[in-house]
Amino acid sequence: MNAVATTFSVLESAAMDTALRAALQGPRGANPLVGAVILNADGEQVAVGYHRGAGTAHAEADAILEARKAGIELRGTTMVVTLEPCNHVGRTGPCAQAIIAAGITRVIYAVDDPHDPAAGGARTLRSAGITVESGLAAADALELNREWFDAVASKRPFVTLHIAQTLDSRIAAVDGTSQWISSPESLADNHSLRGLIDAILVGTGTVLIDNPRLTARDPEGGLSGRQPLRAVMGRREVPQDAAVRGTDGRFLHLATRDPREALSMLFEEGVRHVMVEGGSSILSTFLAAGLVDELIVYLAPTLLGSGTPALNDLGITTLSQAQHWMWDEAGGGSVRTLGNDLRLHLRPTRPATTQENSLPGSEAAEYVSGGH
Amino acid sequence: MNAVATTFSVLESAAMDTALRAALQGPRGANPLVGAVILNADGEQVAVGYHRGAGTAHAEADAILEARKAGIELRGTTMVVTLEPCNHVGRTGPCAQAIIAAGITRVIYAVDDPHDPAAGGARTLRSAGITVESGLAAADALELNREWFDAVASKRPFVTLHIAQTLDSRIAAVDGTSQWISSPESLADNHSLRGLIDAILVGTGTVLIDNPRLTARDPEGGLSGRQPLRAVMGRREVPQDAAVRGTDGRFLHLATRDPREALSMLFEEGVRHVMVEGGSSILSTFLAAGLVDELIVYLAPTLLGSGTPALNDLGITTLSQAQHWMWDEAGGGSVRTLGNDLRLHLRPTRPATTQENSLPGSEAAEYVSGGH
Repeated sequence: MNAVATTFSVLESAAMDTALRAALQGPRGANPLVGAVILNADGEQVAVGYHRGAGTAHAEADAILEARKAGIELRGTTMVVTLEPCNHVGRTGPCAQAIIAAGITRVIYAVDDPHDPAAGGARTLRSAGITVESGLAAADALELNREWFDAVASKRPFVTLHIAQTLDSRIAAVDGTSQWISSPESLADNHSLRGLIDAILVGTGTVLIDNPRLTARDPEGGLSGRQPLRAVMGRREVPQDAAVRGTDGRFLHLATRDPREALSMLFEEGVRHVMVEGGSSILSTFLAAGLVDELIVYLAPTLLGSGTPALNDLGITTLSQAQHWMWDEAGGGSVRTLGNDLRLHLRPTRPATTQENSLPGSEAAEYVSGGH
Repeated sequence: MNAVATTFSVLESAAMDTALRAALQGPRGANPLVGAVILNADGEQVAVGYHRGAGTAHAEADAILEARKAGIELRGTTMVVTLEPCNHVGRTGPCAQAIIAAGITRVIYAVDDPHDPAAGGARTLRSAGITVESGLAAADALELNREWFDAVASKRPFVTLHIAQTLDSRIAAVDGTSQWISSPESLADNHSLRGLIDAILVGTGTVLIDNPRLTARDPEGGLSGRQPLRAVMGRREVPQDAAVRGTDGRFLHLATRDPREALSMLFEEGVRHVMVEGGSSILSTFLAAGLVDELIVYLAPTLLGSGTPALNDLGITTLSQAQHWMWDEAGGGSVRTLGNDLRLHLRPTRPATTQENSLPGSEAAEYVSGGH
């Protein structure tokens, strides 16, 4: 917000394009996609970095690391980054300090950190004598993380919806059997996602019918190191012997049918990224409320013709009201092959957040640590 | 069937692999996928050809044309082809004569023409003094066209099923609106397919609800040069003013609900490739009967949550009975982008036809001309 009107060079614009493209390699979730490029005095791109998700190096630190690996002198270079460098000591250390320590003398970023603007890294960088400019490709950078900015502004977790369905969009056969519609490769992908998120959410119906454990497991069935909170949403009781309760205390019953209320409860618990896994009612509830930031569909090349449809009601009565989604290239691409399945990755097409002042500040700095 | 046990060289096997891969570039339908490779005296692959669908040059003629374009001397060369060369004067002339005329002195093919074996091209080639051997990669060549061999053996048309659906497999909203679920690019693709097939088939329900014309049209809405027969299946009357009747006489009402009977009727009319377009009942009927040779799904990145499901009953009650399909690389690939849509291309996983004697001969030679 301290930026003055600045004209950026063609080389700086090109570097920001590189940074935006690099950012897309990261996964969506608790943290935004961020890319960073280091330019030498001639304006050449000498290093590129991006953020690989909560708990890993931020894009700025990643670019600095890449430059050091290549033996590049950082003193006097310019860093071009898609988001204001952070100022927080999270799991990975503050980027502002890393930039100062590296001897970088100029920083160009696209958009402000939407958390507490007054505590952003720009001020720290300027105090250290670094030239800081912002606003280059701001619209693209906001669009890049549109859903994440929305989630931060709404003080709710980022919501990933997960559907494992047949080609005719069934998630279970008539008799309720659903294990497994997806290929082993899709199941492994889902379990690796479970190890990255803060919470997994299902409906009470799923607990009563399938009695899932909802733990993150490796292909051999062993528990992964990091386990999501296991949340069950709905008014019905969760049986005392339900597998989802586990023994580690990381279980939560959200006694509500309102998805906004459920997300508030999860946010209060420190959850910044939740994956909604089903069944039909909870998937439909979140979609109908426009509360889905990312949609992952494992599409098996099978047909059932009957059984439980993935979705059961979005309040839509005519085609012009259909929900439109866009293919999402982030985090591995929009269409991937996983064994026999296709993994489809989409994001909503709701209007882009374009006004900086629609992003209220927050005392928290959750994206630094992914909520932990 | 006159082949004796033959040992083929590594170069000949490699040429057959090339021919099999080339064949996959063609579209499935009334004619089989066929690839052909010409080897010079040193066993080098000097030309490759494949069949691009009914009405276009056969693979052998295509390879000869490619060789001539490259100025290659054909006298004394060997042709390696995935199917016995034809002996019929169809739309494109008999391949056996073209091979003889070119001065090719040896032909290696994978599998016999399943029509009238006694009338196959092998005999004609041998009569002309050409060395003819068969059986190289026969299992692969049968698998390549498994569904087509089945259709020929059953004296029924090759069946392509077409579904234009949302991500949640709806083909219409609650109020019946369905125009258009697919992108303009998918609609154009569908219309170009209509120009290649012999007949298009819908149920009476679709006629009564949507009143479609079922003509093949170019993107400007003009009629394409070649129009499929417009067939409507079901016991209900087709209204006298239904658009599908048209004025060109190329309309047929099949007053049956039995898909086998419908295919017999179409075969009698000379139809060798039919595309089934919907609605749910007719799609489900053909799938449940195992009478679908090729599945094309236009998948729009939209959600409806309710409305008409693509399929309504396949007689499946538990997951282990699910129909399994395989991704089909033929004719442009298994997954393509068409505007916003994905175009998915699949074939059934029913057991391969491996026995020649399961393919009764037929007096007809329909695949040469695509039924016209």
